Amino acid sequence: MGVIVKTDLKKILANDRVKPYLLKARFGIEKESQRVDLTGNLAKTDHPKSISLRDDHPYIQRDFAETQMELITPVTETLEELFQYLAAIHDVAYRSMGENEMLWPLSMPPQLPEKEEDIVLAKLNSARNIRYRQTLSNSYGRRKQMLCGIHFNFEFSDEFIQALYNIQSELKDYQQFKTELYLKVTRNYLHYRWLVTYFYGASPKSEANFFQEDSLRKAVRSIRSSQYGYTNSDDVQVSYSSIQNYLTDLSSMVKRGLLSEEKEFYSPVRLRGGHHVSDLADHGVNYIELRNIDINPFAMYGISYEQAEFLHLFLIYLLWKDEGSDCDEWVKMGNFYNDAVALEHPLEPTQFEKDAKGMVDEMEHLAAILDWHVSDTLFINLREMLMDPSKTLAGRLYKESEKSSQAQAAMCLAKANYQKSWDQPYQLTGFTDMELSTQILMFDCIQLGIKVEILDRQEQFLKLQLNDHVEFVKNGNMTSKDSYISTLIMENKTVTKKILQQHGFRVPKGEEFQTIEQAFRSYEIFAAKPFVVKPKTTNYGLGISIFKEGANYEDYQKAVMLAFKEDSSILIEEFLNGTEYRFFVVDDQVYAVLLRIPANVTGDGNHTIEELVVNKNRDSLRGREHRTPLEKIQLGELENLMLKSQGYRKDSIPKRGEIVYLRENSNISTGGDSIDVTDQIPDDYKKIAVDAVAALGAKISGIDMIIENKEVPAADKNAYGIIEANFNPSMYMHIYPYKGKSRRLTLHLIHYLFPELLQSRN
Amino acid sequence: MGVIVKTDLKKILANDRVKPYLLKARFGIEKESQRVDLTGNLAKTDHPKSISLRDDHPYIQRDFAETQMELITPVTETLEELFQYLAAIHDVAYRSMGENEMLWPLSMPPQLPEKEEDIVLAKLNSARNIRYRQTLSNSYGRRKQMLCGIHFNFEFSDEFIQALYNIQSELKDYQQFKTELYLKVTRNYLHYRWLVTYFYGASPKSEANFFQEDSLRKAVRSIRSSQYGYTNSDDVQVSYSSIQNYLTDLSSMVKRGLLSEEKEFYSPVRLRGGHHVSDLADHGVNYIELRNIDINPFAMYGISYEQAEFLHLFLIYLLWKDEGSDCDEWVKMGNFYNDAVALEHPLEPTQFEKDAKGMVDEMEHLAAILDWHVSDTLFINLREMLMDPSKTLAGRLYKESEKSSQAQAAMCLAKANYQKSWDQPYQLTGFTDMELSTQILMFDCIQLGIKVEILDRQEQFLKLQLNDHVEFVKNGNMTSKDSYISTLIMENKTVTKKILQQHGFRVPKGEEFQTIEQAFRSYEIFAAKPFVVKPKTTNYGLGISIFKEGANYEDYQKAVMLAFKEDSSILIEEFLNGTEYRFFVVDDQVYAVLLRIPANVTGDGNHTIEELVVNKNRDSLRGREHRTPLEKIQLGELENLMLKSQGYRKDSIPKRGEIVYLRENSNISTGGDSIDVTDQIPDDYKKIAVDAVAALGAKISGIDMIIENKEVPAADKNAYGIIEANFNPSMYMHIYPYKGKSRRLTLHLIHYLFPELLQSRN
Repeated sequence: MGVIVKTDLKKILANDRVKPYLLKARFGIEKESQRVDLTGNLAKTDHPKSISLRDDHPYIQRDFAETQMELITPVTETLEELFQYLAAIHDVAYRSMGENEMLWPLSMPPQLPEKEEDIVLAKLNSARNIRYRQTLSNSYGRRKQMLCGIHFNFEFSDEFIQALYNIQSELKDYQQFKTELYLKVTRNYLHYRWLVTYFYGASPKSEANFFQEDSLRKAVRSIRSSQYGYTNSDDVQVSYSSIQNYLTDLSSMVKRGLLSEEKEFYSPVRLRGGHHVSDLADHGVNYIELRNIDINPFAMYGISYEQAEFLHLFLIYLLWKDEGSDCDEWVKMGNFYNDAVALEHPLEPTQFEKDAKGMVDEMEHLAAILDWHVSDTLFINLREMLMDPSKTLAGRLYKESEKSSQAQAAMCLAKANYQKSWDQPYQLTGFTDMELSTQILMFDCIQLGIKVEILDRQEQFLKLQLNDHVEFVKNGNMTSKDSYISTLIMENKTVTKKILQQHGFRVPKGEEFQTIEQAFRSYEIFAAKPFVVKPKTTNYGLGISIFKEGANYEDYQKAVMLAFKEDSSILIEEFLNGTEYRFFVVDDQVYAVLLRIPANVTGDGNHTIEELVVNKNRDSLRGREHRTPLEKIQLGELENLMLKSQGYRKDSIPKRGEIVYLRENSNISTGGDSIDVTDQIPDDYKKIAVDAVAALGAKISGIDMIIENKEVPAADKNAYGIIEANFNPSMYMHIYPYKGKSRRLTLHLIHYLFPELLQSRN
Repeated sequence: MGVIVKTDLKKILANDRVKPYLLKARFGIEKESQRVDLTGNLAKTDHPKSISLRDDHPYIQRDFAETQMELITPVTETLEELFQYLAAIHDVAYRSMGENEMLWPLSMPPQLPEKEEDIVLAKLNSARNIRYRQTLSNSYGRRKQMLCGIHFNFEFSDEFIQALYNIQSELKDYQQFKTELYLKVTRNYLHYRWLVTYFYGASPKSEANFFQEDSLRKAVRSIRSSQYGYTNSDDVQVSYSSIQNYLTDLSSMVKRGLLSEEKEFYSPVRLRGGHHVSDLADHGVNYIELRNIDINPFAMYGISYEQAEFLHLFLIYLLWKDEGSDCDEWVKMGNFYNDAVALEHPLEPTQFEKDAKGMVDEMEHLAAILDWHVSDTLFINLREMLMDPSKTLAGRLYKESEKSSQAQAAMCLAKANYQKSWDQPYQLTGFTDMELSTQILMFDCIQLGIKVEILDRQEQFLKLQLNDHVEFVKNGNMTSKDSYISTLIMENKTVTKKILQQHGFRVPKGEEFQTIEQAFRSYEIFAAKPFVVKPKTTNYGLGISIFKEGANYEDYQKAVMLAFKEDSSILIEEFLNGTEYRFFVVDDQVYAVLLRIPANVTGDGNHTIEELVVNKNRDSLRGREHRTPLEKIQLGELENLMLKSQGYRKDSIPKRGEIVYLRENSNISTGGDSIDVTDQIPDDYKKIAVDAVAALGAKISGIDMIIENKEVPAADKNAYGIIEANFNPSMYMHIYPYKGKSRRLTLHLIHYLFPELLQSRN
């Protein structure tokens, strides 16, 4: 019973062999919220269909009611990552609900239906899950089940426990040692949790129809954490003195019919061994789940980073801090203190103010001993909340509510969150440093309930998992479906062309050169007809010269030297006349065709070119460095040269309807426009693209095809020419085109990787 | 009948629009030789079994007799490539025959068996092929079929003919135009071929039992090209005046029974439309086959590059040169001239010396007009041969023979060729610029009758084809068998480790860092135990620091900065004690395990370290820049430092049996030794390697595994650790190890790519 814990922990926590591992831990958050319509009424719709409706969806489930969305982060090793996932899952939830719904930002539900039966139970698939909800409904009534909160899962890192274990000498059994640590923290948490309730309690008032009778008239800090909240009956009493006692008590409660099953035990901390309560007996405690956290109305995701940091430090502090000698009494006292604090008025100082101040001082002291650099504002804010109760969450919400009503305040907060979620719908908040196509792919995976693990963030390396089926994806669409050699073929323009030519496709004729002299000598072969000189490996169009009318020897030489600056091999090829289209092929099907147009503005007879550019750049789809679907148009040297060649300057005012081009090349990366033309391109050209990809042995490819006149059949002589096959074609430009229909290629890709998704749907 | 050809060709050949394409053409060589034993007697063995025995082997077939090896190059677009293939196929032929046989270097066969029946017909598979040889045997006798020669296939490039076609205006039909060009060249070749016979005829005398009676007593220039050589009966007469006449005459010869089938027509030039004579009617002439070329005894591959260059220029010259107005008469005169020259004594000037000189002058003039830069020596040698008949091939062979006998002279030449073929048996002559593993793979493909096309030589990109089955291979073992993502996983050490760890394999624990500061902060996590600091992407071991005893903070910092010099991400990992082995896995099987030992010499008590290094470097397996199985040991700065740390200098004399290491790292690229230990490694460790490769979803991989003690079961705790998975593991070091058994991984790879090879064998 906590022997080592009492004697040693204060010393050994500060040991140099422990310190490096102190910040290593594992975290997870579950967050419930009610779906409401834009007027703040409980949604009448079903859980969004775009979210996979599996009961065991890893990220987005329904809790008790159909409107009660539960967002679940994966387990992460840092708080940063935890909040990234929490943000991302919120993005998916919001955009899946559609533009007519929001998430209610309070633990207390919005106004409930007058008749309790009108609260719709979650429409789950498994009969067992439905039965469980029915049981809860019978035991506690549906209203109380509508409370929402945060569950904060916390696991010490193995290295940390190992380091502690190696220093102590009292306990030989590692698993027992670990369990004792968690039990101490748990008992202390139960004893001191009133501090959390004071700072972060945030359910001062209920809305209409929550209480059947008006049991609680006054405003409090946290209805949810009080006796009026989500608790078992008073008869349910479980000892935390040892894991054996804990389990014995729990199973006795079930036997006595006080709980329908063990998971119905609503402790503010739950001990976790694994998936099931029974795992505790075999494996001891592996992590703990803090369940008494109210939704923070002022944090977009229901809990702030600083709050999580507080909880992490608080748990270490509770490990460090001495506990009372009688375990059960210690816990019981905690319940009493907590209920008292929970029921204090939100603007009143707490009756335990002095104790609270002492604990904050101790926590700060401990952080200093442990070289733990918490956020600069944490202790400032904690002390401010102690000085001024109106700065606590409950205090703030209460004061906001005084201006109109709690429901009105909640509506304002909900609308602001809603707005932010829709601001840049192509981004996945939390992961905006990653490539856009990867962000969109992750969005779709989260929505479809495919687990996403980032194996290497800089390298855009993902592990996707659906049940036992694992797929790895790099850069959005580099997958197990393509063979290594097919991508090497596509990477090599010379080889690509040779193979396509051998299969009878038209490709521009040309030659590869390794030396400047060789290339010079072949002038006469190319000079008379349109041709292009380019480095073998191109990079955003650098080193490419196009001669649409042939070239004189001097210009030819210049172009050759320019290309050799970019690569040790260059290609000289015939230039094909026509329009270039990008065909996106996945598994023998063209899912999108895109036309790219060089950066341009359309005159209105009033504004200068510069003004027109500024205006066009206001589009939220335009940004910088490939983190938006389109790039902002530049007005640099190249653009000015291009304007000059057309007789314009930045301050010229083009006529109404006149299109002025600012670039020669049509790359999206230099401000070009993307236009979806999938439905306008005849099938015979799509077949050419599909067949070409097959000839290269590839499955996922972007074919760049020149078509002179798409009304002419593809079988006609020189109707088309294939310029390039891209083994990692960008997807986002098809998903968020400047004009035309969005083609959700990431979804096609996911369905290709996980065909069982479509099978299970049928 | 050759209208345009007469009027325009002299002018249009020199047109600027034609010149660029003049040197573009397609070439092919077939070369027959007799297999002989090391004493120069006709081999009594069968065609080597290591060569695939298909009748239609693309590179190495049997001609009439079982001893008569026919080497066939693919069609190439340059003479350089032609000779590269010819050399490579010779290497394969020689090394397949084994060390007891050679190729006879003359057109005239070595001494034949007394009884004609003892000449063994080729033991082919197809009954039709056997029947055809039986027919030939009956019509001409087996002795005459033992003559060997070179067939030189020549095709004008399409661009060249197209350029001529565009300038001329008389002929509207492109195919007819092309056929007329070939017909003119053919008629002129038949008329003037005596010039080839003079320069390059090389069959002055026969060996015993070639002639049944001693029909030809005197030495001549070319028995083979004369009436005593390999000709049809005099009744076989075919007109070259038009393709229609040619085909009509040929089929009438077959109908009259003068030829068994059309391919029995032994013209010195054969018109080729495609695979069959009948293709000529449909497609016209597509190329021509010069069949009157004797084996050049002095050229290792039976024909010299200069000879081929002469033939190319000669054919263009014959296109340019006016012909006689009566086609058939013109050809008949040629036959007469040629027979006369063929039967001249090899040391006598030719009776047509003046004409010959005129033609050489004209050819030189033409080359100048066409800006054609032939070898500097070509015209010098041609004129020398005209001035001095003993410089012709026949003259040289005759003079060599006078010293002893023609057979003796042939033996000397054969032995020299034989020697060269075995000098560096790991190389594939013609392709020694390519990576060694690719050379060995190409060798095996040629031997197995898999067509090899080089798609990109610098990039080691091959197309392999067996019947309709095509596989692409880059860098020896990057193939269609591995998925793209599995190679990306292996390329990324962090991701590889994560996945292996998730699958329960032991990998060194460690972390990735993106900034120096981050890495500095983690000092305490690593400092106490053995660890290694390395750039995320390593390149020949640069930037790696190993601390076997832990490190102080200063050394740790230095190592971190060193690694960051090589990459923007670094890894710090625990260092595993033990021996590192390379497991080569293909398709779930370990085919080789290699131990690599740092560069070292073993003392003998007499020689200095420097002398021992020089001596060890004499091994022909050691070279530079990865073009030999082992690298020469260096004695540079690093080696001297290493010696110094052991108390040695270059001129120290180590004791007998003492091993002195010159490097810390065991890379083969820095002079290390490779030792095959496949049979010494227990199966449970091999299974670990196979399972690890499977966990990565890979098929071809080199697993680097540390084993502390291979006698301990792999299942023991910490028995092994996997360091790396290599997606393009080098093969040559297993095939030519310094010590131990050779493991022909290229063969395993080919069988994996083409499983039908093994199926057809069963």
